[in-house]
Amino acid sequence: MRISELSAETGVAVATIKFYLREGLLPAGERTSANQANYGTAHAQRVRLIRALIEVGGLSIATAREVLAAVDTPELPVNLVFRAAQHAVSEAGLYEPAAEEGSGAAKVRAVIERRGWHVDPDNPGRHGAARVLDAYERAGHPELAEIWDGYAEGAELVAKADIAALGLQSDLTAMAETVVVGTVLGDALFSSLRRIAQEHISSEHYPTTEHRSRP
Amino acid sequence: MRISELSAETGVAVATIKFYLREGLLPAGERTSANQANYGTAHAQRVRLIRALIEVGGLSIATAREVLAAVDTPELPVNLVFRAAQHAVSEAGLYEPAAEEGSGAAKVRAVIERRGWHVDPDNPGRHGAARVLDAYERAGHPELAEIWDGYAEGAELVAKADIAALGLQSDLTAMAETVVVGTVLGDALFSSLRRIAQEHISSEHYPTTEHRSRP
Repeated sequence: MRISELSAETGVAVATIKFYLREGLLPAGERTSANQANYGTAHAQRVRLIRALIEVGGLSIATAREVLAAVDTPELPVNLVFRAAQHAVSEAGLYEPAAEEGSGAAKVRAVIERRGWHVDPDNPGRHGAARVLDAYERAGHPELAEIWDGYAEGAELVAKADIAALGLQSDLTAMAETVVVGTVLGDALFSSLRRIAQEHISSEHYPTTEHRSRP
Repeated sequence: MRISELSAETGVAVATIKFYLREGLLPAGERTSANQANYGTAHAQRVRLIRALIEVGGLSIATAREVLAAVDTPELPVNLVFRAAQHAVSEAGLYEPAAEEGSGAAKVRAVIERRGWHVDPDNPGRHGAARVLDAYERAGHPELAEIWDGYAEGAELVAKADIAALGLQSDLTAMAETVVVGTVLGDALFSSLRRIAQEHISSEHYPTTEHRSRP
């Protein structure tokens, strides 16, 4: 199909598609004349993927390019596609090691051991979780770390769902796309569901008509 | 204590404490002379809370002021403190209703019904979840919506832990603080744990030494 048809098919403006081409996010089409090229269904799928990553996932062009490179490396094991996606979408401020190790890092090691998880020392989640636990303590609420086994159990359920999604895919590119889309957008999906569940459960424990009191 | 002692106690610079005072985030101390005031342990706790919200939670001054106002309204039911915290920390881009209702909204209503949750139509999570489900579809991966019961179950576990944390608190202000800190920082804690669990579970299903293949 021509670029105008690719635009109609995906609902993405021709100017935006040209921008994706210039930025190297979208592979060039098959040139049919000096100023025309032919695009296939793989191009349409890639345009949809790029838009989702940038517009909903909030990725920068550079970050989108980085995760798409992982998608396009078929010899990369799924494990490493996860790692590339995780590193790309984990903002440095939160997910980098803290300058000074607080008590949070030991709590993270303890929960990993308790659950029997096997995880590299450089997993970005280790640093992020340690930073939050340190922040709970500095905020004067160290007791918030006491309830986090519920978080770890919830995270395991969600990660299992993430891996189950891979089994639904028909080919390697689709699997890698699933990893990227699910990692980028899954955080927002979970945070949304948490807000819904919080409202339901807090209204059961603390009906709105009553003032604040312990249950 | 004097402002210099408050600074030593909390590890927050005097200039920063003065900034919190000017911005109305920290209540004034008890004036003891023309240019001196006395601060108590409640001030120290508030300084710690403000720092955690701004530095780790990434809240703006205006947003921090908004959630602290909810903390300081003792007649506000816990339910509504949750709502204030949720609205304050949920970026408008994701958590506002979409201009056009896609198929995601119906999927959100279905999961709420399936789980027997009672939730207001304006819960920000409804809009956020609908947007992500619409984005999955536009990204060419509608099948990612098939695995989201795992997300909903995980969200319920985390919300239960959030509510359990309230039961650990000694007074109403501490409860409201817990809601605010847990809502602001809990998203980051969960996303971190999800990254850890993803690595563990994906390495079990797809050992690094093997190339991508279906399990």
